[in-house]
Amino acid sequence: MNYGRTFNFSAGPAMMPEPVLEEIQGEMMNYRGSGMCVMEMSHRSKVFEQIIQDAEADLRKLMNIPDNYKVLFIQGGGTLQFAMVPMNLMKNGKAVYIETGSWSKKAIAEAKKYGEVIIAASSKDKNFSYIPDCSDLDIPEDADYVYICENETINGTTYFELPNTKGHVLVSDQSSMFLSRPCDVSKYGLIWAGVQKNVGPAGLAVVIIREDLIRDDLPAYVPTYLNYKTHADAASLYNTPNCWAIYCCGKVFKYLQNTIGGLEAMNRLNEEKAAVLYDFLDSSKLFKGAVVKKDRSLMNVPFVTPSKEMDADVVAASVAAGFSNLKGHKSVGGLRASIYNAMPKEGVEALVAFLKDYEAKH
Amino acid sequence: MNYGRTFNFSAGPAMMPEPVLEEIQGEMMNYRGSGMCVMEMSHRSKVFEQIIQDAEADLRKLMNIPDNYKVLFIQGGGTLQFAMVPMNLMKNGKAVYIETGSWSKKAIAEAKKYGEVIIAASSKDKNFSYIPDCSDLDIPEDADYVYICENETINGTTYFELPNTKGHVLVSDQSSMFLSRPCDVSKYGLIWAGVQKNVGPAGLAVVIIREDLIRDDLPAYVPTYLNYKTHADAASLYNTPNCWAIYCCGKVFKYLQNTIGGLEAMNRLNEEKAAVLYDFLDSSKLFKGAVVKKDRSLMNVPFVTPSKEMDADVVAASVAAGFSNLKGHKSVGGLRASIYNAMPKEGVEALVAFLKDYEAKH
Repeated sequence: MNYGRTFNFSAGPAMMPEPVLEEIQGEMMNYRGSGMCVMEMSHRSKVFEQIIQDAEADLRKLMNIPDNYKVLFIQGGGTLQFAMVPMNLMKNGKAVYIETGSWSKKAIAEAKKYGEVIIAASSKDKNFSYIPDCSDLDIPEDADYVYICENETINGTTYFELPNTKGHVLVSDQSSMFLSRPCDVSKYGLIWAGVQKNVGPAGLAVVIIREDLIRDDLPAYVPTYLNYKTHADAASLYNTPNCWAIYCCGKVFKYLQNTIGGLEAMNRLNEEKAAVLYDFLDSSKLFKGAVVKKDRSLMNVPFVTPSKEMDADVVAASVAAGFSNLKGHKSVGGLRASIYNAMPKEGVEALVAFLKDYEAKH
Repeated sequence: MNYGRTFNFSAGPAMMPEPVLEEIQGEMMNYRGSGMCVMEMSHRSKVFEQIIQDAEADLRKLMNIPDNYKVLFIQGGGTLQFAMVPMNLMKNGKAVYIETGSWSKKAIAEAKKYGEVIIAASSKDKNFSYIPDCSDLDIPEDADYVYICENETINGTTYFELPNTKGHVLVSDQSSMFLSRPCDVSKYGLIWAGVQKNVGPAGLAVVIIREDLIRDDLPAYVPTYLNYKTHADAASLYNTPNCWAIYCCGKVFKYLQNTIGGLEAMNRLNEEKAAVLYDFLDSSKLFKGAVVKKDRSLMNVPFVTPSKEMDADVVAASVAAGFSNLKGHKSVGGLRASIYNAMPKEGVEALVAFLKDYEAKH
């Protein structure tokens, strides 16, 4: 059906699969004979328990999450995870962070409240346009973990190889590439992701944590809600969770498995989509990608024209042509196309056709 | 239209107005020509900014909130507010709490992490079946605030008169009576409410805070997300908020104003509905209300039969008769009917007819 939907290149919240939205719409007034909408359900009811248990089981299957990892559904987004990670994992009060852009910088600033932060590698020297070499980092023996932002949403970089943590726990913010490609969970101590970029509606972070990292000896000032153990012990139902987001994400997990065919298939589609845009940028005389080739994100593609004025002109023309949210983040300027899982290849092709046309005229 | 919806007496998440759900359903695939669902919108887009600004403006109108109060939309629910209130307001490290049941007890336990808690009045002696006299409390001069849970969801009590705080700041958890009746905001320093009981979907707390209580000298360990100033300075858009819940709640605010006619009208309807159930309980020989008359909540009505076995039998029979969620909270047992704003009078009448029928047969 034609709903008049636009190609939405927002960095998040962002597009969701249309068949998932149709299903949600169909269940709005009465979810599967329960007599109510999911928004109206007690989180302690059997019908909602089934929804949250299915969501967890489907995510475990999709990512092949080992049994010794807990899956938690927590409110508060990345901002809260920036605090929860050091509060919960800084046992020795010391952690290593890799500085690759806006979101790792935010994580670093918050972690400094709770202990010593060692920046073992940075790409600040070249405006965060690449991922630094992390094959031989200087990591103190007593560092509690090594933290990365695996895909920098604003800067458009991604890790194709994980850091050599030399036996230390790896913590990753996967928000803007969560479920975009296969992931060997066993290589991580903790993965967290705000779901509003590549999965569902804002207001939910998924945390995947190795059980032995969950502690019961946190400092007294840690609020009950900010202790991973609170959520782990109660299967994410210590208090009322964001039931609606869990329901919607559960549907996306099923969609990725059953319709897309799993994360290998999703990755192939994402590679194809990104190639359409990167091939154009590499051949263009007017538009230029902002990131070195080897570290380019398949999800967030920042690019520029020769001037700020022309950047703004392209954005204005793109809106007139029916595209949404192509303006670069205010902190870096330029343009950015976020092409998450739910962006169809046709959307990227239409964008490239528009950019080619613009280039021909200028 | 008949959707086959049940009368849902859940204590929260709970019923929402059917016309609001229909509107949301209608806007699912393409919100008002934006080309996308609200779940897919950038929180920095003009279209979402309008949604959040309208929600705040409509709430301000509905509650007549004075200009020197901020309205904040925060994730994390009551559990996070239990920590945020003392973290932000305990300047002298001392606060007075009134102990009236399960939710004030949770607030007290969390506040003890951050300072001295003085329980100035309690109804623990009679199983929290009443609201203690708060007309002449013993409040230390340097107490930072006096905290109440204005409606105890589990115990079924409510304050019809606010405590005499003797000039101290009043903080109120209004979660289970938010927008059920008029409220003179100027009497409070801070009001907070998890919206999932009487307004919209879970995952959002509304905080109404007097501006002079917002501080910038909090202890270093307070996470950025847990500082009210973070949210106040950014008009609740410091990070990605629960956009969907804000959108849904905004619709309920409009519905209360335009369809119901405001909070005076809502209160009259709630009084009528509650009277149907309380009048029956007062006349019944089998069922008995659990709360003293003068302090009975209009929202949550706990009641019992002569035995636990019969309680369970009534619950089972109610499910068979098409009612949902009448089982009392696991901590107190018995039965409980939550009859929030969105429960129609017909729902309460149907429940009473069912209970009368049950009584006639036993």
